[in-house]
Amino acid sequence: MYDIIVAGAGHAGCEAVLAAARTGMSCLLITSDLSAIARMSCNPAIGGVAKGQITREIDALGGEMAKAIDETGIQFRMLNKSKGAAMHSPRAQADRALYSVYMRKIIEEQDNIDLVQDTVTGLDVESGAVRGAILPSGRIIKGKSVILCCGTFLNGLIHIGMNHFPGGRTIAEPPVSGLTENLQSLGFRAGRLKTGTPPRIDSRSVNYSLVEEQSGDPDPRPFSFHTDSLGHRAQVSCFVTKTKETTHELLRTGFSRSPLFSGKVQGVGPRYCPSVEDKIFRFPDKNSHHIFLEPEGAETNEMYVNGFSTSLPEDIQLLALRSIPGLEHVKMIRPGYAIEYDFFFPYQIKNTLETKIIENLYFAGQINGTSGYEEAAAQGLMAGINASLKIQNRKPFVLDRSQAYIGVLIDDLVTKDIIEPYRMFTSSAEHRISLRHDNADIRLCRMGHEAGTVDFSSFTKTEYKISAIRQLRQLCDTMKLHPDQIISAMAGAAQQPPLQPIAISNLLKRPEIDFENLLVLSEDFRAGVNEITTDPDVFEQVVIDLKYEGYLKRDLLMTEKIARLESHSIPGSFSYATVSGLSNEGREKLTLHKPETIGQASRIPGVSPSDISVLLIKIGR
Amino acid sequence: MYDIIVAGAGHAGCEAVLAAARTGMSCLLITSDLSAIARMSCNPAIGGVAKGQITREIDALGGEMAKAIDETGIQFRMLNKSKGAAMHSPRAQADRALYSVYMRKIIEEQDNIDLVQDTVTGLDVESGAVRGAILPSGRIIKGKSVILCCGTFLNGLIHIGMNHFPGGRTIAEPPVSGLTENLQSLGFRAGRLKTGTPPRIDSRSVNYSLVEEQSGDPDPRPFSFHTDSLGHRAQVSCFVTKTKETTHELLRTGFSRSPLFSGKVQGVGPRYCPSVEDKIFRFPDKNSHHIFLEPEGAETNEMYVNGFSTSLPEDIQLLALRSIPGLEHVKMIRPGYAIEYDFFFPYQIKNTLETKIIENLYFAGQINGTSGYEEAAAQGLMAGINASLKIQNRKPFVLDRSQAYIGVLIDDLVTKDIIEPYRMFTSSAEHRISLRHDNADIRLCRMGHEAGTVDFSSFTKTEYKISAIRQLRQLCDTMKLHPDQIISAMAGAAQQPPLQPIAISNLLKRPEIDFENLLVLSEDFRAGVNEITTDPDVFEQVVIDLKYEGYLKRDLLMTEKIARLESHSIPGSFSYATVSGLSNEGREKLTLHKPETIGQASRIPGVSPSDISVLLIKIGR
Repeated sequence: MYDIIVAGAGHAGCEAVLAAARTGMSCLLITSDLSAIARMSCNPAIGGVAKGQITREIDALGGEMAKAIDETGIQFRMLNKSKGAAMHSPRAQADRALYSVYMRKIIEEQDNIDLVQDTVTGLDVESGAVRGAILPSGRIIKGKSVILCCGTFLNGLIHIGMNHFPGGRTIAEPPVSGLTENLQSLGFRAGRLKTGTPPRIDSRSVNYSLVEEQSGDPDPRPFSFHTDSLGHRAQVSCFVTKTKETTHELLRTGFSRSPLFSGKVQGVGPRYCPSVEDKIFRFPDKNSHHIFLEPEGAETNEMYVNGFSTSLPEDIQLLALRSIPGLEHVKMIRPGYAIEYDFFFPYQIKNTLETKIIENLYFAGQINGTSGYEEAAAQGLMAGINASLKIQNRKPFVLDRSQAYIGVLIDDLVTKDIIEPYRMFTSSAEHRISLRHDNADIRLCRMGHEAGTVDFSSFTKTEYKISAIRQLRQLCDTMKLHPDQIISAMAGAAQQPPLQPIAISNLLKRPEIDFENLLVLSEDFRAGVNEITTDPDVFEQVVIDLKYEGYLKRDLLMTEKIARLESHSIPGSFSYATVSGLSNEGREKLTLHKPETIGQASRIPGVSPSDISVLLIKIGR
Repeated sequence: MYDIIVAGAGHAGCEAVLAAARTGMSCLLITSDLSAIARMSCNPAIGGVAKGQITREIDALGGEMAKAIDETGIQFRMLNKSKGAAMHSPRAQADRALYSVYMRKIIEEQDNIDLVQDTVTGLDVESGAVRGAILPSGRIIKGKSVILCCGTFLNGLIHIGMNHFPGGRTIAEPPVSGLTENLQSLGFRAGRLKTGTPPRIDSRSVNYSLVEEQSGDPDPRPFSFHTDSLGHRAQVSCFVTKTKETTHELLRTGFSRSPLFSGKVQGVGPRYCPSVEDKIFRFPDKNSHHIFLEPEGAETNEMYVNGFSTSLPEDIQLLALRSIPGLEHVKMIRPGYAIEYDFFFPYQIKNTLETKIIENLYFAGQINGTSGYEEAAAQGLMAGINASLKIQNRKPFVLDRSQAYIGVLIDDLVTKDIIEPYRMFTSSAEHRISLRHDNADIRLCRMGHEAGTVDFSSFTKTEYKISAIRQLRQLCDTMKLHPDQIISAMAGAAQQPPLQPIAISNLLKRPEIDFENLLVLSEDFRAGVNEITTDPDVFEQVVIDLKYEGYLKRDLLMTEKIARLESHSIPGSFSYATVSGLSNEGREKLTLHKPETIGQASRIPGVSPSDISVLLIKIGR
């Protein structure tokens, strides 16, 4: 009898089983292919906008994803560096093969995890509670709880043009039959979604003189708060090119054989991550789309064609690719395709990820209708923790929307209608100014330690950092600098230099003032700082808190307002078309529903709390 | 239009495409899963008796297998070291995951190879010649020739107890449908074979105090003639235990649910590599069988239970395993299983591996009814070379039985009935005294160079070695040592020390005389040798040629006799039961057929040339 059985070893399953095992539960991980643990089925990358933040939160809570990408990443970039700190989003290209090897090794080295190579095709249920997992042989493995992390395997069906093939992730991996039906017989309501992937090409067949090189950051920053340096591996480059009108014309010649347009695919695809044929169909005026060529590893010629997801026929894919600058003689290693799969509407889960219908049964990842490795991993982690807490008779671990992107993600899942694969956006997080990648450890590490996934040494390291931040802030608040000392730092600034001694805190609020610069200018300050810490991450927290103080206060105020003004009225004549800052989906739904109050608006699925903030500002409080 | 299309990237497909590409052909390798290139489906090991010799021959001919195992091996042993040089057989445990990664890298780095991730389900044939491969989408890829290396994927069916599942290699890999039927429609005759694999266990669950450790050689010798040293990786240990009567009793309780005994499996399995239930059924008197626990890699807990191949129900497998000393608390990661698959009777191929029915179509590996990674790789190599030679209008490259194990293998395939998976044995090679692992380079390197797979530098290196051997032999033939010089080396020997100066050649024929010892005893000899070479492999060749001179001459004589005495008569009353040295299969077939002459006997499928040699000695010449 295991404490926890995890079915599936993708990004959700790996975090689920590691979290559970790290809290001392005896765990079994069942996967159909031990060679495919944590396989990246689509984009060979971790992070990006909102997803990078989630990855850092997973790390702060004791998950593995950030460490895995630090160990196996081949290009690291901080996205949106020109924007405010809340938008800074770490992203890295992964060596796809090594990422899988790394995660298998971590799982094999972890105590409390047994592995079985098999498939779960049914559940053993008694009196409304799960008792174990059923394998195709009929064998029942007993467990106190079961976490299903099935990815796209449930009745997976792959489409390329008018052909379709059964497939769980690729054509070389069979789908899982029987589990959907078993869950339906237990009372669950299933739906059908679709996602897609672009073709892979041979990097040797690219003409690099016609594409633009995109290098990694010169000073790459690790994903994990526990990685000291990324100096172990040379970074590789990605490349940028774009489609031409000819590309679009060629793609259009395949529309009559498109499984999407012909109605062959029933599942709903992600609007935010459209296929290239979708983009051309929906935005006929746009005569070019960016294409990113991303290596799948440091030692492979396989290359991912980001931006070119498609399920058009193979011949069309190749012709269209060859019309793109740099790809005139490209060799296609495998075509893009669409995959349809079963999911379960997530109103059927609690915010612990336990299902409402069957006790001790948890769903995590694409089975809940989400998309993305990071979203899956976050759910896996939370399901693993909660399954463990429940077995220990401890209270559940639920993050609210103001605490973490993960809180937003799960709250969205359990309260909103999922009609297309759910992806995390910064715009979904109304508290995004506080939910930054840089402070994920400060926000979450203590909670992870209490849940049992963060060890004592990582916990104390973070507590030490928090204490240093507090001390440093105090120093900045109390120490003043004389105008003479800082005149050079203010040279050329729009603001006048101060005439009186000024607190360092107040100085740092000025955009042109740089923390490192002050260290150079004032020996006293440098000495005071060095007594506290030399950690630049501590400096960063104090600086961000000061520079964004106004926004952070406004964010708090806004939250209170949202609570108070739930029923503030919206004029019937209000036009959403001209309101800038609304999400596309929010704008569509608001225009359609014409809510009478902001309270109403906030309950319309697809209207994000961020949209509500925009409305509150616009409508007038 | 490619020159050569290879379908399948197992051990046959990898060698086929590399050989063809190295001879300058433009090649396409089609595989259903780029992450599973050169995947070891069963035993994580390369080499062994006869197979080690084949691996060295593949290396001498410019193949990759030996280099791959040198790079990724985790334990190296020379088997049969206590026997004569002809029986010395290199064997190594592989890191299964790394082996696959290595081979993918080599293939990706090789010029002239394109990769496509897909499946070949049909052939494009015109006027009796192949013109290309057909993919499931209907897409036809044109090629001047096609090499099919399908392994066990053709209509693969996996059996565990009374359950069966479609599977190409594991349950997680779908079989290939349609290709068998397509080949049948072209006139090929298909058959059905079966093979099996043991359970994998968690190495952490073994009680090491109850099993015997088996270490690698202290001075491991590389497989490849081009690997200078294996010093890159620490060797791991294997472990030996054995079944008990209880194990056998437990296994017997599952016989009623055995797919083999109940007739569910139609394919014929390999007699020489029986399942554990087969062994117990066929040898009821034997109350114990050896079990070898072999790690699947340096960094994994997965362990292969060699000797315990089984398709009994999963519950029985686990119970029986737990009755074996050391495995009392074993955890099973995946059960053993049997797999049935289609093959094509190899009388339908020529000894170039081209099919007789369809021009430019080649078969290599399990599709020809063979078993074993090395046998598959050898065929792949030869098919790749011959497909290339034919495109270049050059004459075929065929090895005869006196030149190589590979010659024996292919000659056996094309002339004998294959009724069970064919495995290479030393006993099948009548010239085995000459076909040693140590001289494979001398026998084959020049041929590989002429075929285009061995580069000039490897070729000249071997030619230089051959020349050194000739010079050293001449030195040994001409230089004499005085009795005083060698008296110490002869101490304790059965033979009298010589009384007159004696040629070093004659000295070396004496079993107690060691080459290195003579180097120490005679300064003149040492100086003479050092002028020629310091390569111990050169010394070894001269020593073996001298020590086995008698056998080698007798072997030559025997070959001539076999040719002359094709129709020598055998008495009707002759009893094979008492003839020692006959293979089991040969004895069975001879007893059944009662041939009238040795000529007849030699043509009975299952009677090996080695059996004929035994008969010739016994019957009388």
